[in-house]
Amino acid sequence: MISSEIASQLNFEDNGTKIVLFVIDGVGGLPLPETGKTELETAHTPNLDKLAARGITGMTIPVAPGVTPGSGVAHLALFGYDPIKYAIGRGAVAVYGVGMEMDEGDMAVRINFAGYGSAGVVLDRRAGRLATEKNKELCKLLREIKLPGVEIVIETVLDYRSVVIFKGEGLHPHLSDSDPQATGEDIFPHKVEALDPSAKHAADIANAFIKSANEILRDGAKDIVDLPYGQHIGILTRGYAGRPEIPQMQDLYNLKKMGAIATYPDYRGVARLVGMDIIYTGHELEGEFDALESSLEDHDFIFFHVKKTDSAGEDGDFDKKVHLLEEMDELVPRLEALNPDVIVLTGDHATPATYKAHSWHTIPFALISEWCRPDDVKGFSEAQCQHGALGQFYAAEVMLHALGHARRIAKFGA
Amino acid sequence: MISSEIASQLNFEDNGTKIVLFVIDGVGGLPLPETGKTELETAHTPNLDKLAARGITGMTIPVAPGVTPGSGVAHLALFGYDPIKYAIGRGAVAVYGVGMEMDEGDMAVRINFAGYGSAGVVLDRRAGRLATEKNKELCKLLREIKLPGVEIVIETVLDYRSVVIFKGEGLHPHLSDSDPQATGEDIFPHKVEALDPSAKHAADIANAFIKSANEILRDGAKDIVDLPYGQHIGILTRGYAGRPEIPQMQDLYNLKKMGAIATYPDYRGVARLVGMDIIYTGHELEGEFDALESSLEDHDFIFFHVKKTDSAGEDGDFDKKVHLLEEMDELVPRLEALNPDVIVLTGDHATPATYKAHSWHTIPFALISEWCRPDDVKGFSEAQCQHGALGQFYAAEVMLHALGHARRIAKFGA
Repeated sequence: MISSEIASQLNFEDNGTKIVLFVIDGVGGLPLPETGKTELETAHTPNLDKLAARGITGMTIPVAPGVTPGSGVAHLALFGYDPIKYAIGRGAVAVYGVGMEMDEGDMAVRINFAGYGSAGVVLDRRAGRLATEKNKELCKLLREIKLPGVEIVIETVLDYRSVVIFKGEGLHPHLSDSDPQATGEDIFPHKVEALDPSAKHAADIANAFIKSANEILRDGAKDIVDLPYGQHIGILTRGYAGRPEIPQMQDLYNLKKMGAIATYPDYRGVARLVGMDIIYTGHELEGEFDALESSLEDHDFIFFHVKKTDSAGEDGDFDKKVHLLEEMDELVPRLEALNPDVIVLTGDHATPATYKAHSWHTIPFALISEWCRPDDVKGFSEAQCQHGALGQFYAAEVMLHALGHARRIAKFGA
Repeated sequence: MISSEIASQLNFEDNGTKIVLFVIDGVGGLPLPETGKTELETAHTPNLDKLAARGITGMTIPVAPGVTPGSGVAHLALFGYDPIKYAIGRGAVAVYGVGMEMDEGDMAVRINFAGYGSAGVVLDRRAGRLATEKNKELCKLLREIKLPGVEIVIETVLDYRSVVIFKGEGLHPHLSDSDPQATGEDIFPHKVEALDPSAKHAADIANAFIKSANEILRDGAKDIVDLPYGQHIGILTRGYAGRPEIPQMQDLYNLKKMGAIATYPDYRGVARLVGMDIIYTGHELEGEFDALESSLEDHDFIFFHVKKTDSAGEDGDFDKKVHLLEEMDELVPRLEALNPDVIVLTGDHATPATYKAHSWHTIPFALISEWCRPDDVKGFSEAQCQHGALGQFYAAEVMLHALGHARRIAKFGA
């Protein structure tokens, strides 16, 4: 059951109740062979456990059985959208993540500043995880690029990531990436290819932009970025995308004011795309809780995003992921103290430290509300929530559970 | 979620991992009133239990709640197809099961050689479970039949079963069966009826063929088959079908080489229809394990079929089904020793010995893989797997679970 699809058949009441969707990125894990326990099962998280014990629990399927989602896709599902239908390109997510907009007909793409070898091979896809300040200087250089018939807008995202919007006629964004997703002395960036004939012009523009960018950066970036000997800066492009057309959550669910608290631009981007305001927060988890405390009063719905667990999983650092969960757990009483009508506690996907990547596994879920029917699960982990009363269900159903328990879905039928 | 339908939205990696889909026909059961235990719960199956303990478990719904599937339909679901959409006629399954092909416009139907009484009533739907060698001689007689404008191809399947292909113009195969599915002094075979007006010509051809066949066999079969006094041989027809149009598994999932190990022709037929090679095996389970050992190296995916459990269930022989499960269990270490990346252990449908027929009940399921998240189920049975982390799910999702755990489904979306 896709929340946004059934929503058109339902009436939603604007009753002032408040929902917090608390998303721990990559929270799902796999057992460490030595202990047989996942990250969540290993971590000492009394506050998460206390919430789960008060709530009704289960496990969510992010997209489909066996399917590993990207973060954008996984969040769209949690926001109630069919994640297959609304697969939104990385370029568009980046544009909205930095607070910009796209017009109809625009094409956007994410840029990585990368370390190239002298033969033009890709040696470092992140240019030594370039600092944001350096990135801003490189973007200034790229703004010199002129292409006939196309307006080009370039903006820094974070670290080594930037985004570019191409504005012009006939830019059909069905293109392959130049990023080879690998590095080495024999790894060249890919040429951008039109994935259908109508995208030919867009491919020409993309390839011309990349060529100019690499020419400008090869010498121009020398005084800005220190790279290992023999490397120079170039760009890689990923996720060509047009302006997403997606129904807004306000319209779907009659929610008046929705806010997103997230330290990373991409999550802000997905949230803005579906109609949320971005609530100012710093780069640290404590700042996110500060933002939650100061903004819940004015919002019907807040999406709260915890990023670092996912990064620790991708780095394969089991202990760090455990530690981050424990650190986060200490702050959870600040959420509980706000006593929103509904707390949804879950993740967007699994990032098991043993697997070092996003995975397809199911995610623990707990919904805490005055009106939930608690099951006998007493803690927030895979081993416990798999016995929850909600069983296994699709992430795209989460919004229905949340809105229902907030008594925002009007009685259906006579 | 139907595996083959979502597949068009996904990318599949050809990463060399190996999947074995181990299907125990009719494995699901019902408790014996005296013991309260099903066949699987009664059988001593330490090796199946060991696999389940290593895996993630659940219960599959073959087609839909309450719906009892035929074997072909149930296997199509396991192979990832919508079993409602791709209900393939028995005639076509038989053609492909004996290694033949159909052309577009062909119509096929399964034949039973049956024992008729003198008044033309059906006394034995299987002619005393006729031997395959006798069947071959009867087929020779039937090849004398000529009908205007139609080419007729006849082939023995196994025991009392044969298949006929009609090749000609306008053979729309939407026809009722002549097999009355019952026997007795007042049970006559049905006339084949057109189920829509466009099938009128096909019905005429089918009825003319049956009439000729019964005339030829009435006397012609006397010297070939010994039947009880007063009986003579005739035919019954079941499952008129055109050439199935079904997407091939290779194309759906980017699997390079898929093989089927099955002792019965119908299962080979379904497997060939979706694109599998037939791997040579004998008539016994040991031979099937030999075939598995010698062929896994060269295949990405192997479907392994265990037949006799189903037959014991249909015969209502609870003890025999238990015994067959125990016999099979002793061979299971040969599967485990091959260490495929993914083992799926399940059945196609239930055939409870107390019910003496296929049934609609759910089926134990276990998936064993280095990358599964094991649940706390420690054995392979209804009582245990119903507490598994996968809960209850549709058989048509099994391929997604298998391909995901084989890391063959590329990350979806940014």
